[in-house]
Amino acid sequence: MTISEQSRGNHRPVASVDTPFLALDPERMERNIARLEARLRALGVALRPHMKTHKSVEIGRRMSRGIGPVTVSTLREAEEFADAGFRDVVYAVGIAPSKLDRVAALRRRGVDLAIILDSVAQARAVADASRRSGDRIPALIEIDADGHRAGLTPDDPEILAVARALVEGGAELRGVLVHAGESYGCTTPDELAAAAENERAAVVGAAERLRAEGYPSPVVSVASTPTAHFARNLDGVTEVRAGVHVFHDLVMAGIGVCTLDDIAISVVATVIGHRPEKGWIITDAGWMAMSRDRGTASQAVDQGYGVVTAMDGTPYEDLVVVRTSQEHGTMAIRPGGDAPLPDLPVGTRVRVLPNHACATTAQHERYQVFPTGSEAIVAEWEIFRGW
Amino acid sequence: MTISEQSRGNHRPVASVDTPFLALDPERMERNIARLEARLRALGVALRPHMKTHKSVEIGRRMSRGIGPVTVSTLREAEEFADAGFRDVVYAVGIAPSKLDRVAALRRRGVDLAIILDSVAQARAVADASRRSGDRIPALIEIDADGHRAGLTPDDPEILAVARALVEGGAELRGVLVHAGESYGCTTPDELAAAAENERAAVVGAAERLRAEGYPSPVVSVASTPTAHFARNLDGVTEVRAGVHVFHDLVMAGIGVCTLDDIAISVVATVIGHRPEKGWIITDAGWMAMSRDRGTASQAVDQGYGVVTAMDGTPYEDLVVVRTSQEHGTMAIRPGGDAPLPDLPVGTRVRVLPNHACATTAQHERYQVFPTGSEAIVAEWEIFRGW
Repeated sequence: MTISEQSRGNHRPVASVDTPFLALDPERMERNIARLEARLRALGVALRPHMKTHKSVEIGRRMSRGIGPVTVSTLREAEEFADAGFRDVVYAVGIAPSKLDRVAALRRRGVDLAIILDSVAQARAVADASRRSGDRIPALIEIDADGHRAGLTPDDPEILAVARALVEGGAELRGVLVHAGESYGCTTPDELAAAAENERAAVVGAAERLRAEGYPSPVVSVASTPTAHFARNLDGVTEVRAGVHVFHDLVMAGIGVCTLDDIAISVVATVIGHRPEKGWIITDAGWMAMSRDRGTASQAVDQGYGVVTAMDGTPYEDLVVVRTSQEHGTMAIRPGGDAPLPDLPVGTRVRVLPNHACATTAQHERYQVFPTGSEAIVAEWEIFRGW
Repeated sequence: MTISEQSRGNHRPVASVDTPFLALDPERMERNIARLEARLRALGVALRPHMKTHKSVEIGRRMSRGIGPVTVSTLREAEEFADAGFRDVVYAVGIAPSKLDRVAALRRRGVDLAIILDSVAQARAVADASRRSGDRIPALIEIDADGHRAGLTPDDPEILAVARALVEGGAELRGVLVHAGESYGCTTPDELAAAAENERAAVVGAAERLRAEGYPSPVVSVASTPTAHFARNLDGVTEVRAGVHVFHDLVMAGIGVCTLDDIAISVVATVIGHRPEKGWIITDAGWMAMSRDRGTASQAVDQGYGVVTAMDGTPYEDLVVVRTSQEHGTMAIRPGGDAPLPDLPVGTRVRVLPNHACATTAQHERYQVFPTGSEAIVAEWEIFRGW
């Protein structure tokens, strides 16, 4: 079903929706999805798109071309996508033993839900739950490539102890998984390619160690939008998890993964006041609409709470949201910028491109779907939340 | 209706709710509400509590002792509280002209909804909408006391021009309103009292200027939890708007408005991993559960993404959430702290006190209501969102 088929008769004017609201450009989104698919086809690796960025069944169907394999960050996401017919799901946050009953319940519904872990304590809990439910719960061992967060380093003897606890305890060892979060700090294609290679080598090395000891590792999973776009070789990897590429954002633009014209979501705001003596233009999109995420603060170019464009997508030179309250955004020329403050009277609508697509999306109930520059909404898609 | 009456038969065990979730201590909340009421009674000023912090009808009823006067930050809040029977509402964000149809619709339902503005352009739009709807929409002129955000300075001649545009255009001039946001940067009782006096003097001065020119100003409204707790004199002020006092948070504790034991909300998280070589304990409460708010980063004591306590409310010495991903929180001893890392095995539950109650609440669908240390949930209250 295409977007226009699904939404026939639903062409509300963009101007009729009160601000602030979350706009999604479906053409940019489709382009972003297709670009990553083409890259992974060339590398010969499957995609397991991440649902955490958008939390929308409609977008999940587009990213996975139907009801294909997906990655989730919460059991709530797993349940929502299960309800929508998805059957191949990896829950990619280290399992808390208390959540295994919900995992088992989803598996009884026919969902091939796999979990991840990095300790013998978790492996024993998964083995216990497998025996209790009479179902070998599949688990991936989380590998740490760069000291970013969770996981076992590839040379940690604990990997084999975890594998043993799973297999001997009655669970399924499905493989290894890594998330190289430090790649978000890279700034050149060579750095990004090196981070991707480091990630690949770590997780493939862990898989080889398992196999050398007689354990299976059918799945070898790497992550992240930067890795997916900059890896030059993914030999030994079976799948890539990526999510933010569906929308992109200012952090991805700062890393060099995309340009501003690729960013598919924006917050539409209305000018509600001026402080000419301070060089401020005030809007009704504060942090409640943008999120408090300031991911570009540590990049070469700090974009404040967001880059401001006209409704047709053209950026106002050097205009960013420099501060926010809950329901106020203060726009100004960026520090060091020398463009004149544009003339935007009370009532003018603007778009704000976000630092971090996942964080901004989470602030909203729904997407208003329309191509940038269009005045007609073609669809409205719900965003769920919770755990 | 008391909390226990309302929830009779609903005493689910706390342990049965999956983490992360938002816990609300009803005893702390009632104590916080009563404390502010006592202060304002002593100062002889009315309270118009702010609903933006909690977005819950149940809590709004408790803060306003029924369906009393309230402040809101969005028209969605105004509509939700109107549905629940509230009839005296100030929408305290500068009005966008495109929102006046929703304002007029609420007023036709019998809600005495007042709006705020700080420009002649807005005043003309409100006057036009008043004439169109045959209803004098009440407006408060926003005054700026400290250069924080929106508003006209008390000596700005524009105040009289706005008053004229409202009154001559057919709207109602209801008075003046101020929000001294810079008070959040104060650190001593004397600084806070001085900020409150500055706020009072600015808005009372503006009201007197209006009256000297023959304009009415029945309402003289000041704001903020710090002002409400530290003002020594509110002569000439008719009402105080405060919201965050209902829960308090680490920012308020850092300013000195409350102690950690007053903070009524926390995020309950489960330990999902350890990185002993880094001194990290990893939980399932990331920024999706905590928000990205880092309000204490600019205070004397940076509390990271939150202070960690045991389930009984006792803080673990120097243990804070030092970083977050979407669904991961990394706990560690704070920089400079010398307490030993506590032994918290996989599966242990902890509470995290938030930087900013409004931001953390906005990440959740509902409150789980139970006194700190209790093992039985006495109520579950919905949180709405959107604009």
